[in-house]
Amino acid sequence: MHILVNAAMSADGKLSSRDREQVAISGPDDFDRVDAVRADSDGVMVGVGTILADDPSLTVDDPDRRRARSDRGDPENPARVVADSQIRTPTDARILDDEAETYLLTSEAAPPDFVAEIEETGATVVTAGDQRVDLAAAFDALEAHGIERLLVEGGGELIFSLFGADLVDELSVFVGPSVIGGRQAPTLADGDGFVEEFPALELRSVERIDDGVLLEWDVA
Amino acid sequence: MHILVNAAMSADGKLSSRDREQVAISGPDDFDRVDAVRADSDGVMVGVGTILADDPSLTVDDPDRRRARSDRGDPENPARVVADSQIRTPTDARILDDEAETYLLTSEAAPPDFVAEIEETGATVVTAGDQRVDLAAAFDALEAHGIERLLVEGGGELIFSLFGADLVDELSVFVGPSVIGGRQAPTLADGDGFVEEFPALELRSVERIDDGVLLEWDVA
Repeated sequence: MHILVNAAMSADGKLSSRDREQVAISGPDDFDRVDAVRADSDGVMVGVGTILADDPSLTVDDPDRRRARSDRGDPENPARVVADSQIRTPTDARILDDEAETYLLTSEAAPPDFVAEIEETGATVVTAGDQRVDLAAAFDALEAHGIERLLVEGGGELIFSLFGADLVDELSVFVGPSVIGGRQAPTLADGDGFVEEFPALELRSVERIDDGVLLEWDVA
Repeated sequence: MHILVNAAMSADGKLSSRDREQVAISGPDDFDRVDAVRADSDGVMVGVGTILADDPSLTVDDPDRRRARSDRGDPENPARVVADSQIRTPTDARILDDEAETYLLTSEAAPPDFVAEIEETGATVVTAGDQRVDLAAAFDALEAHGIERLLVEGGGELIFSLFGADLVDELSVFVGPSVIGGRQAPTLADGDGFVEEFPALELRSVERIDDGVLLEWDVA
């Protein structure tokens, strides 16, 4: 599986403010670029924190791009994928509507009732790992469902876990023209953090877009 | 006074790991660039956290640059400036050696004994503010000592305070090719964080340097 992580952060590396409310970091050109990347992906993934904070739909916005997907025999929208170890996704979350297939990756720690409730919405629950999602094993299951190109849109906890499991192929970061600040504000990569060895990146491209800059890194 | 904030952060916005040990983020070309900026400054400032973590000297490395300063009638090195509300700077800190003038900006909350000890090293103590340094008032005092161009090299607590007090003119950020991660790791701007209004930046220049990229922002 090929995994591209994409996110927009402030000039000081924050995804949003300490209140975890959405902050407009990028602009229309970057939104459109991300929409095109979504349309080229088999799956679009976030962590459950992003579901709870933003309730995104994770669908392709541009009708021409959805039509192009249909024309080539793909579903109109890529699958939605949520990493959710305990199943905290509410059953009325947008990603559980019928606009696209949805996979909830969870662990053995998820209450069976919650698994059943999620499955009733039509979503597929993939269980891998004891207390936390075993991401590598869960991704093998996604591959068996035809998901080869996965776009990960955050948040910082999931992004850190993916780097920790050595699963990231590419990192695209839009750096926006503002300072958010805050010890408690979510950053591009949170989690426990690395201490002695740090995942190394190679800068593939730098492009000015909207009022910021898009940095595209390959994982070395 | 003209205030330039300069720092190197990982691709995910961290100044160092959660252990607050120095991590090599930039490379020789960026070090040399920062040395040149130091040589063009009247003062080089950090917060006391940086003194305690790294014990930097904050002097100009290149002898030609020091000589050029002398030739134009300036001291060999710019003044060192430390924001240190309670005076936690140890008297054997490198910034208290005789390589350059040193100013400790402190508050009324600093123990008088500590003030006396610092003054014995030859450094100048500037007191402004009750519990925390009143940065604007302290900078007025520095201006009276001839410091017009101030380079601030971190850390994230000081940088946030400066943005909070609307004192920053320019922000230069080297974004390096690694992921550090960590909810607790220091970021480019820590502090309490902004919530509703965020300082806006204008991207002046983008330059690839070492294996990363230098982003130069003006504060809007």
